[in-house]
Amino acid sequence: MTSHPHHHTKRDDGPLDQLIRALAGLPGLGPRSARRVALHLLARKDSTMAQLSHALAVAARDIKSCTRCGNLDMADPCRICQSPARANGQICVVAGVSDLWAIERTGIYRGQYHVLGGVLSALDGVGPGDLNLMPLLDRAHDAQITEIIMALSATVDGQATAHYIADRLRDRPDLKITRLAHGIPVGGDLDYLDDGTIATALKSRV
Amino acid sequence: MTSHPHHHTKRDDGPLDQLIRALAGLPGLGPRSARRVALHLLARKDSTMAQLSHALAVAARDIKSCTRCGNLDMADPCRICQSPARANGQICVVAGVSDLWAIERTGIYRGQYHVLGGVLSALDGVGPGDLNLMPLLDRAHDAQITEIIMALSATVDGQATAHYIADRLRDRPDLKITRLAHGIPVGGDLDYLDDGTIATALKSRV
Repeated sequence: MTSHPHHHTKRDDGPLDQLIRALAGLPGLGPRSARRVALHLLARKDSTMAQLSHALAVAARDIKSCTRCGNLDMADPCRICQSPARANGQICVVAGVSDLWAIERTGIYRGQYHVLGGVLSALDGVGPGDLNLMPLLDRAHDAQITEIIMALSATVDGQATAHYIADRLRDRPDLKITRLAHGIPVGGDLDYLDDGTIATALKSRV
Repeated sequence: MTSHPHHHTKRDDGPLDQLIRALAGLPGLGPRSARRVALHLLARKDSTMAQLSHALAVAARDIKSCTRCGNLDMADPCRICQSPARANGQICVVAGVSDLWAIERTGIYRGQYHVLGGVLSALDGVGPGDLNLMPLLDRAHDAQITEIIMALSATVDGQATAHYIADRLRDRPDLKITRLAHGIPVGGDLDYLDDGTIATALKSRV
């Protein structure tokens, strides 16, 4: 199956093929769903398609990665980092922004975050230098910080990453290092959990 | 579950929310996959995201609906309508452009098309005036046209539409009116069939 809508032998690489190919490269979309989305958009050029184009342009222009925590926001530092109410001494360490969103949706966490941009993985060749790790260690050595909450997935790599960070913070014995505990299924992805499970895991952190 | 990434009580309607909402409105994407796509794009602003933006802008500007057959193409009339080789007296009637693509992928049909833009449906309130039907009847009354192939889904509405068209062409008894026959599962959607099934159905049309 080719992504080319017209012929299955050669590509003419017209704008339609380019649109379908760009869509087919997005996570969760294949050639068939990309064709469906392209038709949906082209049938709604002045509404849906214009809105999507505009939203992409504005987001590309205005959304930045927070240089402090790695969150995505219009402001840098992000609004969570800037909020005095959230400077409560807690830093919640997450692998990705989607995990931060998942925790924010529970509405019960009031501290700050640190987005690693992944987890350590020998298999995938992800080492400490590939992650947003040194800035976390810097932040964690600030005396104002009292607790690091490891909100990493209950996978081997997630737990190894949490262990690695805890190890680098041994020189701050007063620092409480906790992890989400109750309710995360082993091997489960944080972003795919329901809000209640995450809320429970956060409350009963150990 | 709300599509808002940050809080579950109110919307701040920033560019991130607008992007996620625009993506979540596309067929096959929900709030969760829209968030995933948004993060995927924002992590690749200068490559994937720029390509998609560009592809959308070019497609919106250059892709037109063929005023003759309803196909989508850069040219109007479309390249199929313009091709002398394909003016062989056959018109294949399809509900949508995705069905035209599905038939083109088989590579065995060499005639022209007519895209209805849907099928008649009492339930959905789709009447003859809502479809690209009159132009088809005009085209079919051209003496050069020798065969109308009804490539409509084997649903009640699809078959009722084929019947309606055939009925309007009774005054051309010399015109062969055929339909795809062998291999289309009843209730099946043409766009979801494998190319082989479509090729077989096309060859053994009755």
